[in-house]
Amino acid sequence: MTSPDPDTGLLAPGWAGSPAASATGDGAYLQALLDAEAALTRAQASLGLAPAGAATAVTEAADAGRFDVRSLAERARGGGNPVIPLVADLTRAVGAEYGPYVHRGATSQDILDTATILVASRTLEVVLADLDRTQRALARLAADHRDTPMPGRTLTQHAVPTTFGLKAAGWRSLVLDARDRVTVVRDSLPAQLGGAAGTLAAFGAYGASEPTALPSAYADELGLRAPELPWHTLRTPLADLAGCLAVTAGALGKVAVDVLTLARTEIGEVAEGSGGGSSAMPHKANPVRATLIASAARRAPQLAATLYGSLAAQDERPAGAWHAEWEPLRDLLRLVGGAARDAVELAEGLRVRPDVMRDHLDLTHGLIVSERLSAELAPVLGRARAKALLTELAERTYAEGRSLGELLAEEPELKNLDLDELTDPARYTGSAGTLTDRALERR
Amino acid sequence: MTSPDPDTGLLAPGWAGSPAASATGDGAYLQALLDAEAALTRAQASLGLAPAGAATAVTEAADAGRFDVRSLAERARGGGNPVIPLVADLTRAVGAEYGPYVHRGATSQDILDTATILVASRTLEVVLADLDRTQRALARLAADHRDTPMPGRTLTQHAVPTTFGLKAAGWRSLVLDARDRVTVVRDSLPAQLGGAAGTLAAFGAYGASEPTALPSAYADELGLRAPELPWHTLRTPLADLAGCLAVTAGALGKVAVDVLTLARTEIGEVAEGSGGGSSAMPHKANPVRATLIASAARRAPQLAATLYGSLAAQDERPAGAWHAEWEPLRDLLRLVGGAARDAVELAEGLRVRPDVMRDHLDLTHGLIVSERLSAELAPVLGRARAKALLTELAERTYAEGRSLGELLAEEPELKNLDLDELTDPARYTGSAGTLTDRALERR
Amino acid sequence: MTSPDPDTGLLAPGWAGSPAASATGDGAYLQALLDAEAALTRAQASLGLAPAGAATAVTEAADAGRFDVRSLAERARGGGNPVIPLVADLTRAVGAEYGPYVHRGATSQDILDTATILVASRTLEVVLADLDRTQRALARLAADHRDTPMPGRTLTQHAVPTTFGLKAAGWRSLVLDARDRVTVVRDSLPAQLGGAAGTLAAFGAYGASEPTALPSAYADELGLRAPELPWHTLRTPLADLAGCLAVTAGALGKVAVDVLTLARTEIGEVAEGSGGGSSAMPHKANPVRATLIASAARRAPQLAATLYGSLAAQDERPAGAWHAEWEPLRDLLRLVGGAARDAVELAEGLRVRPDVMRDHLDLTHGLIVSERLSAELAPVLGRARAKALLTELAERTYAEGRSLGELLAEEPELKNLDLDELTDPARYTGSAGTLTDRALERR
Amino acid sequence: MTSPDPDTGLLAPGWAGSPAASATGDGAYLQALLDAEAALTRAQASLGLAPAGAATAVTEAADAGRFDVRSLAERARGGGNPVIPLVADLTRAVGAEYGPYVHRGATSQDILDTATILVASRTLEVVLADLDRTQRALARLAADHRDTPMPGRTLTQHAVPTTFGLKAAGWRSLVLDARDRVTVVRDSLPAQLGGAAGTLAAFGAYGASEPTALPSAYADELGLRAPELPWHTLRTPLADLAGCLAVTAGALGKVAVDVLTLARTEIGEVAEGSGGGSSAMPHKANPVRATLIASAARRAPQLAATLYGSLAAQDERPAGAWHAEWEPLRDLLRLVGGAARDAVELAEGLRVRPDVMRDHLDLTHGLIVSERLSAELAPVLGRARAKALLTELAERTYAEGRSLGELLAEEPELKNLDLDELTDPARYTGSAGTLTDRALERR
Repeated sequence: MTSPDPDTGLLAPGWAGSPAASATGDGAYLQALLDAEAALTRAQASLGLAPAGAATAVTEAADAGRFDVRSLAERARGGGNPVIPLVADLTRAVGAEYGPYVHRGATSQDILDTATILVASRTLEVVLADLDRTQRALARLAADHRDTPMPGRTLTQHAVPTTFGLKAAGWRSLVLDARDRVTVVRDSLPAQLGGAAGTLAAFGAYGASEPTALPSAYADELGLRAPELPWHTLRTPLADLAGCLAVTAGALGKVAVDVLTLARTEIGEVAEGSGGGSSAMPHKANPVRATLIASAARRAPQLAATLYGSLAAQDERPAGAWHAEWEPLRDLLRLVGGAARDAVELAEGLRVRPDVMRDHLDLTHGLIVSERLSAELAPVLGRARAKALLTELAERTYAEGRSLGELLAEEPELKNLDLDELTDPARYTGSAGTLTDRALERR
Repeated sequence: MTSPDPDTGLLAPGWAGSPAASATGDGAYLQALLDAEAALTRAQASLGLAPAGAATAVTEAADAGRFDVRSLAERARGGGNPVIPLVADLTRAVGAEYGPYVHRGATSQDILDTATILVASRTLEVVLADLDRTQRALARLAADHRDTPMPGRTLTQHAVPTTFGLKAAGWRSLVLDARDRVTVVRDSLPAQLGGAAGTLAAFGAYGASEPTALPSAYADELGLRAPELPWHTLRTPLADLAGCLAVTAGALGKVAVDVLTLARTEIGEVAEGSGGGSSAMPHKANPVRATLIASAARRAPQLAATLYGSLAAQDERPAGAWHAEWEPLRDLLRLVGGAARDAVELAEGLRVRPDVMRDHLDLTHGLIVSERLSAELAPVLGRARAKALLTELAERTYAEGRSLGELLAEEPELKNLDLDELTDPARYTGSAGTLTDRALERR
Repeated sequence: MTSPDPDTGLLAPGWAGSPAASATGDGAYLQALLDAEAALTRAQASLGLAPAGAATAVTEAADAGRFDVRSLAERARGGGNPVIPLVADLTRAVGAEYGPYVHRGATSQDILDTATILVASRTLEVVLADLDRTQRALARLAADHRDTPMPGRTLTQHAVPTTFGLKAAGWRSLVLDARDRVTVVRDSLPAQLGGAAGTLAAFGAYGASEPTALPSAYADELGLRAPELPWHTLRTPLADLAGCLAVTAGALGKVAVDVLTLARTEIGEVAEGSGGGSSAMPHKANPVRATLIASAARRAPQLAATLYGSLAAQDERPAGAWHAEWEPLRDLLRLVGGAARDAVELAEGLRVRPDVMRDHLDLTHGLIVSERLSAELAPVLGRARAKALLTELAERTYAEGRSLGELLAEEPELKNLDLDELTDPARYTGSAGTLTDRALERR
Repeated sequence: MTSPDPDTGLLAPGWAGSPAASATGDGAYLQALLDAEAALTRAQASLGLAPAGAATAVTEAADAGRFDVRSLAERARGGGNPVIPLVADLTRAVGAEYGPYVHRGATSQDILDTATILVASRTLEVVLADLDRTQRALARLAADHRDTPMPGRTLTQHAVPTTFGLKAAGWRSLVLDARDRVTVVRDSLPAQLGGAAGTLAAFGAYGASEPTALPSAYADELGLRAPELPWHTLRTPLADLAGCLAVTAGALGKVAVDVLTLARTEIGEVAEGSGGGSSAMPHKANPVRATLIASAARRAPQLAATLYGSLAAQDERPAGAWHAEWEPLRDLLRLVGGAARDAVELAEGLRVRPDVMRDHLDLTHGLIVSERLSAELAPVLGRARAKALLTELAERTYAEGRSLGELLAEEPELKNLDLDELTDPARYTGSAGTLTDRALERR
């Protein structure tokens, strides 16, 4: 191994080998940089500011496979960004005739920001496709388990019953929230073009009579939105990416932490389709997909914070705030892209165990319906007496190992109540079914 | 001083005494909690689930001035949230007849989340009003200085000229971005109602035939949106708040860091309307508003990160993730509310010094237009000769203390060029004016 | 309620009413600011730079109870910090004769930084006392349960047995790590004194022949370390505080998240001494202490990040980075102080259920010792045959509902092995006891 | 280009090509993983638990160049970490005889944590060497400019004079703080060895009579400290790394932000040795080193926050918190390693312009010494009259464009004062020289 440096994801089982990894690798960024350069020349040609031959020549030369990414990376150090050496190499590749049209009038940030947006846009497509598969799988789970009762848990303790359908519908609702926010952002992503200080002045110097036509032509070439203003230090697009990616990581993270809880050895209400094994312990089936998603959800907020922090960008190009965006945004895209891939597998493969859920409803000796009994006994016994009785019986259930239903059945005052109904956790799921139905109507 | 504890903002010059401070203090939260309780009883009454007298009684009792907030704060420790003691106190205040209707069927989180949303909604109103004043002041600055040239600065160095109008238009564009994002979030804020585990079951136990009607009625009472689902652990609303507040802090932070730079003693292109003084140094006029805004912008991203981190909330109510939201959201609301207040004062009072800006355009001996000359000399001299000449003259400007214009005038090859035009920084502002006009069309 | 603003901890059940709350309230900060002012005058008097009467007068006047903290908070806005109005009020309180000696030669940051250090130092004492009680309680748990076997869990699944003693010893080890780091930082905390730009120049102007003697005299008055240099923008002390507080929050957070898991309804291996109740669900005993500690652990890292971010502080006093430290440091002190209080209660009150732990060792039908069997069977059966047999039997345990021990006992090749020993989870705790003993030797 | 994925630092001019990049690349991690595996077998051999031939065989096979890192990265996904496929490949490489001794008794986390520590330790060596070069260069700057006066700046405004020597001494002091903290952490870094749940049980099953001897032997093989306890979920070592790296990033960040300010076009008191150029603007000499360091300082705090957040790690191995550490720690090591490299170049190459500094002392027309005059005129004029006079003259300086010294010379009451002395900024640097000397005594 001649060079120890290149990273291929050895520390990143959450995203290595994923479509998002391919979409965000150095090669992908390099191609996006070249796409931006080529679009710039084509846009100038389309407005009569460069010969058609230049557009063709730059477009043909703009093939990442023909450039040495490692060399560019190391030469980026001098000026602090990779566009400077790339322009040199691309100009050479284009040749003497059309070389002068490469990067003409632009600043490094025009190209790097546009490439970043291209990479983001392409990665969000991957993410959206996986979010869609995930929400569909979750919709199936919600529908299939609309009436599967299970313990609702608050502060780690059984509270009252719920249904797995409502839980899955809630997961899906979060995934749809994420999808909606990602979609809005994807549709808003602008190309960047402003020249050295965002005035488009150089394009005028090179002959454009109305330089403000250029950003639109450029954006059209790239399939991106035309910017209202050059946004070299108006970083809303990056902040919006940060926000929608943090939301997505968190939405998937919610699914993951729930699965991690429900898959615990003692709980076992769900299991991943194919858990990860252990060399030494053949019985283990680790919830690896959920683990990796949860890991991404732990990292995304702080990466987003770094991007939000770069909103306060000085001058016409900041000395540091801009540079601090590049890797965190890529990290976010990868983490979310990887988590979305894992979420598909998690949701499509999840094994649900209604019998285990049903068994757990009895773990509190029937006290999981004590809220209902508080409500229903009060009219019969009076509020104070009802409360005192339930408190007494709650203690006896644990002491005597008997269920609340049995103990209540011994109370003569209650003989007219349908205690089977009132103490059946499966019949105290409230509006879970209706809420699930309603949530599934959302598309 | 009998109690050393209560905080009144001694460490918070950025928000102490502001409308946002009032809107987010313990008193405001207490009132919001009570508003939520009262709305719940009213909503039940409106659906025939509680007597009208209960609605009246709870509404009347729900006056923060009648409760001991310190006592509530300390008693909150037992169960981990302030709603538990508040319900006890409110029930007592309502009295024996209607006390049983207090909080009926709800869970603490229903009330605390709803109160949080009320506080957020009320604070966002304040923020929006201040953002609007700020954007209007910035629009005036942009219009007034549409053609005021100044140095464009990148990586701390003069690059090419820009205008103060374009800079102010960019600031405004960010403020409008913030406003738009805050508005969307404000309009989406949902009430919270789900009962112990989000199934609305207790409302059924208390007699509701269709408990899912209750959240809508409750939201109507509060002027909030009805939730699609109970969102006890579907925390998109909090994440959305985090995002729009982080964007706002950053947008105002951009204005602040630019002002801080431009107000430096050596630069002095702008000054705050009334800078903060110094006891020992009478000449100082510190840019205090910008300082405090910049301080808020440093903190907001990490507070938002904590909120994003709470998206991964376990079960039907998480043990920690929920509790970790309360103070950071309030901190964000206060910081942004205070920053918005300071931004109004900053923008409305900003003193701009076009003459200083103009003088600075000459600091680089004319090299600030070297980009233009590179473009314009190439057709005359050929690209290589133009570059060589400019490099040579650039060195001579500094060595000889002469301007680039003077040196160029000595070159006989260039005698046919309008060097006055080409070397005047004020005439190399590109499309700054057009871009400013366009940006100001946005409402 | 005339003023809605003052905060008493309504949103902070984790720290409201705690000693750390008292030590960090506005009143405590105000007193610390006054302590710093008084120490400054006394130090000047001790070096002959001020009359003894001034020292006495300022010291007597420096009583927080005599100042209006709310007024100071609001007047802080003008200059951006509370020291400016405080100096005015204190000078007035001291009177005409000695008023001129108030704050003489100092800058606001000298006083505010020193007050911050005093508050931090006082709060760390509280924290250290609680960490010590916590570690002692954990030591008792570790010793008492040195040989209490329980499932070791990795990635949420049972792995191999461990002991509760080792777990508690690990918790204690973390608490001692935190204690050690807090102690180092507490012992290093420096006073701040530099004057307007850190040169001590004003003290010379006021007559000091060797102004560098003053910081030492000042630090002595305060019981703090003398600074090597004025550290207005050399913020290592703040970063060190951030680090030790983040470590402490995390160390206690580890205990909390383990308790939250082990206290789950389905697991129930531990319970808090007195869990928090629920109004509607009498059976619930929520792990509230652990919940609030976990909540603090979620917030501390981001607060520390803000403090680390302020290390990059411009100039001789930064415009924003300094101001961004004040509230986050206080928040960290409170969160950690509150978490330490809760940790004492958690550790001292924890109820441990060895019988439940023992029962859970059988949940995997004996497979929890499969690692051991892999090792022990290989020499008997050969590695490949051993592995194949275990894999086959593992499947059969679940399918047939029988234990691995029973199935192994049917294998004639294994009749010479002591299968009772080999399949007893309680006898596969490895070096847990020795490790526990060793860890408990640490003081 | 057959595969677009591998990253070589295209987005990372701050660290690409640096020694830290080499020390932290996938190749370096792979070698560290192999080093850990080899050390484990050797340690077992040293205790008689494995044949000497196994130690030799594994050590020989443990050569990163013989493994396919990309394949490992992708296969890591199944079980969620790269050790699982690595053990398979290494076992195969070692061969049938000694293969069974590979990884014997260990868990994946033992190897991955140990490798992480090895990588960290090796990278910290690089960092320490660069911090040492940096502090030496800063010491030279401080000594050379001990008496070079310059404006002290607070809240962006000139306050009172300071010296460049004191500023450089302060920078160095921070670098030494960072060095000291990094050194303590480097010296404390422990190997990890605990087996599946941290009890060392498997080593007993494989024949060790006292398994607790093994971690020490293992640590000795690696040149690391033996752990007190297995620290799979006692993550102080990672938190300590986070802290010292965040401090280092911030310390270097302080130097960077000061340089960025002082190098501004309008200020120009310092310049980087060789600034980065711009293709379009030949006059630009951007402070690229400082920019990249500042960028690292913006990112490090949030990366540290993620690591602190992983302290709250559940169970005997957490499902997510552990995985969330890997990339952020590597990112921190790289960012800090790169920043340290840039800091050497920055400090060694910094060009200082005492004449510009001296000129700037006059920018406020002499008001930069108003603090001194306030002190010195009071005994002559009385405090009130002195203040009134200075306020009046301050206004006149700006209005009339004259210096404070000139105006004071016109006041007959002051004729006995040495106004040349009192109004010379260069003679109001206080104890800057003494403080610089003292700071330089620190080694």
